Amino acid sequence: MASPAVDFARNNQQRFLNELKDLLRIPSVSTLDEHKSDVRQAADFVANELRRIGMENVEIIPTKGHPLIYTDWLHAPAKPTVLCYAHYDVQPPDPLEEWISPPFEPTERNNNLYARGAVDDKGQLWLEVKALESLLKARNGSLPINVKVIFEGEEEVGGESIAEYVRKEQAKLKADFALVCDTELFAPNLPTLCVGLRGLVYTEIEAQGAKTDLHSGMYGGVAPNPFFALIEIISKLKDAKGKVLIPGFYKGVTAPSKDELQAWKRLPFNEEHYRKAEVGSKVLTGEPGFSVLYRTWARPTLEVHGMPGGFTAPGAKTVIPAKAAAKVSMRLVPNQDPDDILNKYTAYVKKRTPKGIETKIKVWSKGPACVVGTDNRYIKAATEALRDVFKKETVFIRSGGSIPIVTDFQDVLKIPSVMMGFGLPDDNLHAPNEKFHIPNFHRGIETICLFFEKLGGK
Amino acid sequence: MASPAVDFARNNQQRFLNELKDLLRIPSVSTLDEHKSDVRQAADFVANELRRIGMENVEIIPTKGHPLIYTDWLHAPAKPTVLCYAHYDVQPPDPLEEWISPPFEPTERNNNLYARGAVDDKGQLWLEVKALESLLKARNGSLPINVKVIFEGEEEVGGESIAEYVRKEQAKLKADFALVCDTELFAPNLPTLCVGLRGLVYTEIEAQGAKTDLHSGMYGGVAPNPFFALIEIISKLKDAKGKVLIPGFYKGVTAPSKDELQAWKRLPFNEEHYRKAEVGSKVLTGEPGFSVLYRTWARPTLEVHGMPGGFTAPGAKTVIPAKAAAKVSMRLVPNQDPDDILNKYTAYVKKRTPKGIETKIKVWSKGPACVVGTDNRYIKAATEALRDVFKKETVFIRSGGSIPIVTDFQDVLKIPSVMMGFGLPDDNLHAPNEKFHIPNFHRGIETICLFFEKLGGK
Repeated sequence: MASPAVDFARNNQQRFLNELKDLLRIPSVSTLDEHKSDVRQAADFVANELRRIGMENVEIIPTKGHPLIYTDWLHAPAKPTVLCYAHYDVQPPDPLEEWISPPFEPTERNNNLYARGAVDDKGQLWLEVKALESLLKARNGSLPINVKVIFEGEEEVGGESIAEYVRKEQAKLKADFALVCDTELFAPNLPTLCVGLRGLVYTEIEAQGAKTDLHSGMYGGVAPNPFFALIEIISKLKDAKGKVLIPGFYKGVTAPSKDELQAWKRLPFNEEHYRKAEVGSKVLTGEPGFSVLYRTWARPTLEVHGMPGGFTAPGAKTVIPAKAAAKVSMRLVPNQDPDDILNKYTAYVKKRTPKGIETKIKVWSKGPACVVGTDNRYIKAATEALRDVFKKETVFIRSGGSIPIVTDFQDVLKIPSVMMGFGLPDDNLHAPNEKFHIPNFHRGIETICLFFEKLGGK
Repeated sequence: MASPAVDFARNNQQRFLNELKDLLRIPSVSTLDEHKSDVRQAADFVANELRRIGMENVEIIPTKGHPLIYTDWLHAPAKPTVLCYAHYDVQPPDPLEEWISPPFEPTERNNNLYARGAVDDKGQLWLEVKALESLLKARNGSLPINVKVIFEGEEEVGGESIAEYVRKEQAKLKADFALVCDTELFAPNLPTLCVGLRGLVYTEIEAQGAKTDLHSGMYGGVAPNPFFALIEIISKLKDAKGKVLIPGFYKGVTAPSKDELQAWKRLPFNEEHYRKAEVGSKVLTGEPGFSVLYRTWARPTLEVHGMPGGFTAPGAKTVIPAKAAAKVSMRLVPNQDPDDILNKYTAYVKKRTPKGIETKIKVWSKGPACVVGTDNRYIKAATEALRDVFKKETVFIRSGGSIPIVTDFQDVLKIPSVMMGFGLPDDNLHAPNEKFHIPNFHRGIETICLFFEKLGGK
């Protein structure tokens, strides 16, 4: 399938990559206050480029946190409208000493580009921008479909501002589907669309015993210990095999279809390699009777992330703390309602709270699972474009993580998302030596050009 | 009983208190590396004062940890020799936000002196020093008995150096009895000697799962979670009623005599007031069938003090940490051997460690319980001195805490300890707003003056 846009992209590969390096040099770490102006600088960089390539109505939208970027091009009447999403903020780079080349000095090695944000998500944001440029340049300033773009700078800190903006500006953002470039290929050279995400309820159980910290010599044997209370409670939340014990937790849980489960079995997946190279543990844990992919993609879980309180420095302090807390989250699957789960969880925690201890539950995050049907025209066009570029059939996978914006697009804007990502499983997201495989950057640009052209009827 | 030493002490009360404030301003937190030079500064402060008041052979003894201070005055032939003990290190002050006045800015309120270390144990160290000064000044540079002094700066981190020094320098430290000022009065105005202490084994269970921190979205359901492993293990260490479940834990535990139990029943103790005013909890917990004093003084316990690791800052981080730890201690009673208990505990923890998790046990502190007989002349002289000052009969109590050095004095030097302390039950040891009731500071000085004079035959 001949495409002048793809030709343009191929003739500009080096420039596109160099521009991405310039973007990666800006340390737009959204979690750290000292990088606030860097985040702003990254937003300016992206917005300027959107203006330069011929997108219209480019806006930098201030928020309580970091700015959003909006732009559109809406001159394709009777053609579909896409809402393109990506984020320009990045995770903190620490531990710095484990980076082979510095995180904000993009460096090429073995056909990979190493930098914080290379793949998560500046590289994937930039491939959206470069696909738009290639289309505009190859088509005399026009696009095959209507395009709206919303980029955010708070994905790594919870994405509150974009969620609020989506609720407030439903008309402005209205589209037929969203294109979300923030996921990965299941394996190298294997075109992949993500069609399911788990939901998340992230809580903190705060426990209080005595009114003040007490000496464990003097009061050990009579004073309630909030740590022990939390341990008693949490030990009853999940059994040793990974089954969550909250009554009604699994009620109505929707299993994947037989076809989907069969397709997962055909994926190139070596459990032993995954255990050693990716997880790095002696065994894999979890519910018996469910495969690894099933357990991580389509089964709900419960985890403890940290237990603040008491004495945690090196050494011995014989304290019975007055207060302790536990950060406990649950991953949800389709047909589990976050509010219903939260209610059941809260009731169970209260019921299990021992005498002498008061517990309160704080909710840090809450969103349902999301599954996208594969039988819509956008997914179909995406698979065709992927086949043209990768010369292979697309696999449909899920992800165990949560992309709350996909849920917002579905629930608020009522549109499906095409989660088309070009990262690799070993790209070290959120870790030292994050990278983007350079051929995948270029394939991403070409795929989006073809995807939009197919939807526009060429 | 007229005593020029007591007169001297009464005439110098304000100066003595001001000097104590100077000592309290030095943040000699022995558990924290960043305070190492402060601990050293506190040692210098005390040693300089011992020299100034006329004690001899003052030495600052370097150790692997924090220094010991030794001094003596040995010119009373045929009179008994006392070994005076106290410690100049303090607990960390956190949580800082709960202090009404800053922990290292000693502040007087309601006849109390508030500061970290006010009563534990700088205030009680200083009253020993000031008693020696008062005696020396009132008696033209001589003391009524022979005096050796050993002060340590590691009591709050396990006291390893002094234990080693006692074993190595038995001849140098040889005495007839020890005076240990690190305990409290059972009630305000009630002269009290402590004749029993619980032992302590303080451990940290370190648990490791995967080789690196993992995203709980991607890996929740397959990756071992060291927090959950610790929770599973610890929930099996003690039941909800406070019974320790380690096999053999209670084997051989010696109960107090009927007489001692009867005497405890006569002590002025109101359980409801204790619960409300001292513990400040909704209920008192612990083993059914044992009184509060029995549970805290003569029953073994197990507590969790803190669980370092993972994500503990405000907010949500969806991490399955590679490592987590739990600070777990056990209080021991007479006839429980710390090594034996540690072995049983270690074996039990290993047995309960789930697949995929590796646990290691670090020992921060280890010492047996200790009970002192009440029928020796030193205890008798001490009760007489206390009666002179307080105008009341002395009560004999135990303490739920541990003073390992008392065990070392007994086992290595073969001498009994007089545990004469002047704290109060609500002095907030190891907690925010630690205080010393100022009149008790002065009574302590007077009592020791009279105690030594009685033993010297005046």
